[in-house]
Amino acid sequence: MGSLENQNSYHHTISSDTIGKVITCKAAVAYGVGQPLVVEEILVDPPRSKEVRIRVLFSSICHTDLGAWLGENEAQQVYPRIFGHEASGVVESVGEGVEDLEVGDHVVPIFNGECGECAYCKSDKTNLCGTYRVNAFKSTMTGDGKCRFRTKDGDPIYHFLNTSTFTEYTVLDSACVVKIDPKAPLPRMTLLSCGVSTGLGAVWNTANVQAGASVAVFGLGAVGLAVVEGARARGASTIIGVDINPEKRLKGQAIGITDFLNPKDLDKPVHQKIREMTDGGVQYSFECAGNLDVLREAFLSTHDGWGLTVILGIHPSPRLLPIHPMELFDGRSMVGSVFGHFKGKSQLPQFAAQCMNGEVKLDEFITHELPFVKINEAFQLLIDGKSLRCLLHL
Amino acid sequence: MGSLENQNSYHHTISSDTIGKVITCKAAVAYGVGQPLVVEEILVDPPRSKEVRIRVLFSSICHTDLGAWLGENEAQQVYPRIFGHEASGVVESVGEGVEDLEVGDHVVPIFNGECGECAYCKSDKTNLCGTYRVNAFKSTMTGDGKCRFRTKDGDPIYHFLNTSTFTEYTVLDSACVVKIDPKAPLPRMTLLSCGVSTGLGAVWNTANVQAGASVAVFGLGAVGLAVVEGARARGASTIIGVDINPEKRLKGQAIGITDFLNPKDLDKPVHQKIREMTDGGVQYSFECAGNLDVLREAFLSTHDGWGLTVILGIHPSPRLLPIHPMELFDGRSMVGSVFGHFKGKSQLPQFAAQCMNGEVKLDEFITHELPFVKINEAFQLLIDGKSLRCLLHL
Repeated sequence: MGSLENQNSYHHTISSDTIGKVITCKAAVAYGVGQPLVVEEILVDPPRSKEVRIRVLFSSICHTDLGAWLGENEAQQVYPRIFGHEASGVVESVGEGVEDLEVGDHVVPIFNGECGECAYCKSDKTNLCGTYRVNAFKSTMTGDGKCRFRTKDGDPIYHFLNTSTFTEYTVLDSACVVKIDPKAPLPRMTLLSCGVSTGLGAVWNTANVQAGASVAVFGLGAVGLAVVEGARARGASTIIGVDINPEKRLKGQAIGITDFLNPKDLDKPVHQKIREMTDGGVQYSFECAGNLDVLREAFLSTHDGWGLTVILGIHPSPRLLPIHPMELFDGRSMVGSVFGHFKGKSQLPQFAAQCMNGEVKLDEFITHELPFVKINEAFQLLIDGKSLRCLLHL
Repeated sequence: MGSLENQNSYHHTISSDTIGKVITCKAAVAYGVGQPLVVEEILVDPPRSKEVRIRVLFSSICHTDLGAWLGENEAQQVYPRIFGHEASGVVESVGEGVEDLEVGDHVVPIFNGECGECAYCKSDKTNLCGTYRVNAFKSTMTGDGKCRFRTKDGDPIYHFLNTSTFTEYTVLDSACVVKIDPKAPLPRMTLLSCGVSTGLGAVWNTANVQAGASVAVFGLGAVGLAVVEGARARGASTIIGVDINPEKRLKGQAIGITDFLNPKDLDKPVHQKIREMTDGGVQYSFECAGNLDVLREAFLSTHDGWGLTVILGIHPSPRLLPIHPMELFDGRSMVGSVFGHFKGKSQLPQFAAQCMNGEVKLDEFITHELPFVKINEAFQLLIDGKSLRCLLHL
């Protein structure tokens, strides 16, 4: 990872020659459900009003990209399309009315934008912007409902999750672009776009875990391990990692779990084991697996009277919450957390600083690096459970 | 109601002659599912260690008594049994080790006790005592698992909800007895045992509704109207009452609803109407009907990003929460509230004072009064939706 430290000079990637012009560049384009992405030249229009065009330098892959690529939801199946939402890069040009960003700024995109002006952005209770909140069904730009990407034949290429980062250049609403300290290591900053922010934020913002607290984390992928890191950074005294993949034990211990449970090795439901280990249950549990049976275990693993379960996993199936209404009368509760309740534009710069000063450690999360053209290989690493984050160099 | 004001002298009801002896008195005994209660003489044992024997003077009837009487849950069907949990009375005698109560104290029983010593009682996050919390399946005393009531033939008569108040004398764990100001009007204090505390407390303690807030209340029975009173007392600016019984409009207005909606009169789902009326939804909704379809409407009636639904209704059917996990990602949440999150012994005396000084108005809740022997008539008034609370004089 040391090689990532000294790559903070990206001025050479930006030239004023392209401002206002259509850019031809490489992108990884999806043409159908589960089909290998095609790395090819595409056309990228200049940014329009309140939009920004970014030179993407690094992009990693998250399970949400995987789910979209696998076409988990029919309504989301629009092609051709450019996936990707975890990235870092440099501003190439800005559209009219963009005041907080300028050419050359180091930035990370956020799929859950922040306009700063709506009732939601002004509320301290939510990070769901009225206009730019995460929307898995949106595939065009907010301003005019059109695409900024085209194939060389001129056909529109659809956007994804307000971001579309599997391309050398992308256009985003400025509400979805966060300026970060130019001294921050850009490769690692990709982690702030989604997985790590989601996990850390769920611990800090959604649950507000305090020193000495007890925590159980279900699913030790990148988001789950970010929950572990967030709990460790807050001084939780018990951090139980739960995963059916035995290899996650070491990974979890490297970050900060105090105990590891593999449900397959237990002769009783995992919530019973956790209740025994913690005198009645943990204070907080985090569901990072996107599985309803796991969600029920996570819910039952908390202490009655005050246990809080935070849902982070994406649950695609049309099933109901696996909880009887009367069970809420035992004093356990459950909330969802989107992007860790971070208001991206307001709060990520400070989060980046906490990563830079060592308060939060990102080292363990980038397990692989590959050139952009090997993006399909990177997908396979994630599918096989071999990578947490594979960093693509664009 | 004026007649209730001047009945604060109940010393004549207590005589030291009975201390330590079995008392023969009248009780309304249930002998089977839905069978009329039999008002007959029974035997009541003296209180044992940490128990208190009470002369019950007033008892009202709540839907939970109705549900138990109708045998909604097979596991709860034990007979003969004495129902009732909303009451007020005077301490007749105390068992060994009872230090906070003495003969002659004015008291209300609470079905959700407070020992004051367990981890739950010491936590400010829950009012579920480790030992004496509400338990619909419990039918004997905590101390020895036996009954303190017997028929004249000597057969045990089972207890109900830590209280059993449909009897002139009852025995309770002292953790389930709250001493109140002897100047408080005892007849109205029955309301503190359950319905009014549950509704008010859900607004004050569970949701912590503030001045200017918007609130929707689903189901305008006694608990729902107590929610209205709690919201009014806190200065909520919008209080929407929802009920399919058109007669609830006037009742709701008398207490403080600003709007009334009858779902039967609407050409759209009630949550849509509420969202239109409130610029996207109310801040808080309260489900007081014990119906899952109503619960879903209550959930969807709140504003995304910050809406909170408090569940008060009892849901006997074995169905799941009617919410898809992904819907929690819209920032709405849902919690259960037992006894309005009041810690009974610690907090009800202050609540009684708030009722006495007019901060909380109880006038509207007692709609009928009957002598104890007419208890079956009182049940019918509740079944027919004619009464909120019928006060029985024992």
